[in-house]
Amino acid sequence: MFAPRGSTEEVEEGRALAPKFDADGLVTCVATDARSGEVLMVAHMNAEALAKTIASGEAWYYSRSRQRLWRKGETSGHAQRLVEMRIDCDQDAVWIKVEQQGPGACHTGRRSCFYRAVPLGGPGGPRTLEFREAGKAYDPRAVYGDRD
Amino acid sequence: MFAPRGSTEEVEEGRALAPKFDADGLVTCVATDARSGEVLMVAHMNAEALAKTIASGEAWYYSRSRQRLWRKGETSGHAQRLVEMRIDCDQDAVWIKVEQQGPGACHTGRRSCFYRAVPLGGPGGPRTLEFREAGKAYDPRAVYGDRD
Repeated sequence: MFAPRGSTEEVEEGRALAPKFDADGLVTCVATDARSGEVLMVAHMNAEALAKTIASGEAWYYSRSRQRLWRKGETSGHAQRLVEMRIDCDQDAVWIKVEQQGPGACHTGRRSCFYRAVPLGGPGGPRTLEFREAGKAYDPRAVYGDRD
Repeated sequence: MFAPRGSTEEVEEGRALAPKFDADGLVTCVATDARSGEVLMVAHMNAEALAKTIASGEAWYYSRSRQRLWRKGETSGHAQRLVEMRIDCDQDAVWIKVEQQGPGACHTGRRSCFYRAVPLGGPGGPRTLEFREAGKAYDPRAVYGDRD
């Protein structure tokens, strides 16, 4: 499914899918909600996860902590159906626009993993995060034995 | 500016900013256009880039290929002013919503780095990428001596 890496010109301006997997064999994946545009999560894909995602239209990832392939929603039922996949200029990151199944993408019980804001500006002291999505969309303990 | 990493509960449910930098000292950063929601680019920040971004409200990154800190737009003038920064559940990725200055974020001359789509489904053969933003918003050779 993947072409060999060519010249910079070929990678950036060409039509061949030639992902640049890092030293751990991974590309970065950003998943956004296809309707709201909200960033739901950032995760990684190895070659197998990327190929399965492209072929199936469902999000597969590679867990660095658990060192295994996983289909999003395999435990929780909160799968992600792809509306579109984009790849970036140097082909080391993909952006998937998804229809998030179920109440949320985050294993903590929120819709998005990015539920806290970092205050900007001012002096360089410690920052107190501000919750933007404090309430949980579901009870993660009822859904996960372990994290998804 | 950064707190030490605490327990999983503290990192995920707390209000302390305690980023998880990887083995190379980096977190992943996703920049989206604050108006359109479009993903503009994915890049990395080391502790210094993250601290400078938070303090200044302008995007600073760390280039893995050039092994140096850079302020987005320092060459091109295409800076990114932050509207908001979010951090994810395990605090190893940040999402910045930005006002992109100038015609585009991508060094190839496009507005977004994600200007090509990957066709989904079907048999597992090679994929032909589809340009979604074929025309260039500016001439990168006129703007960059080297890439930004």
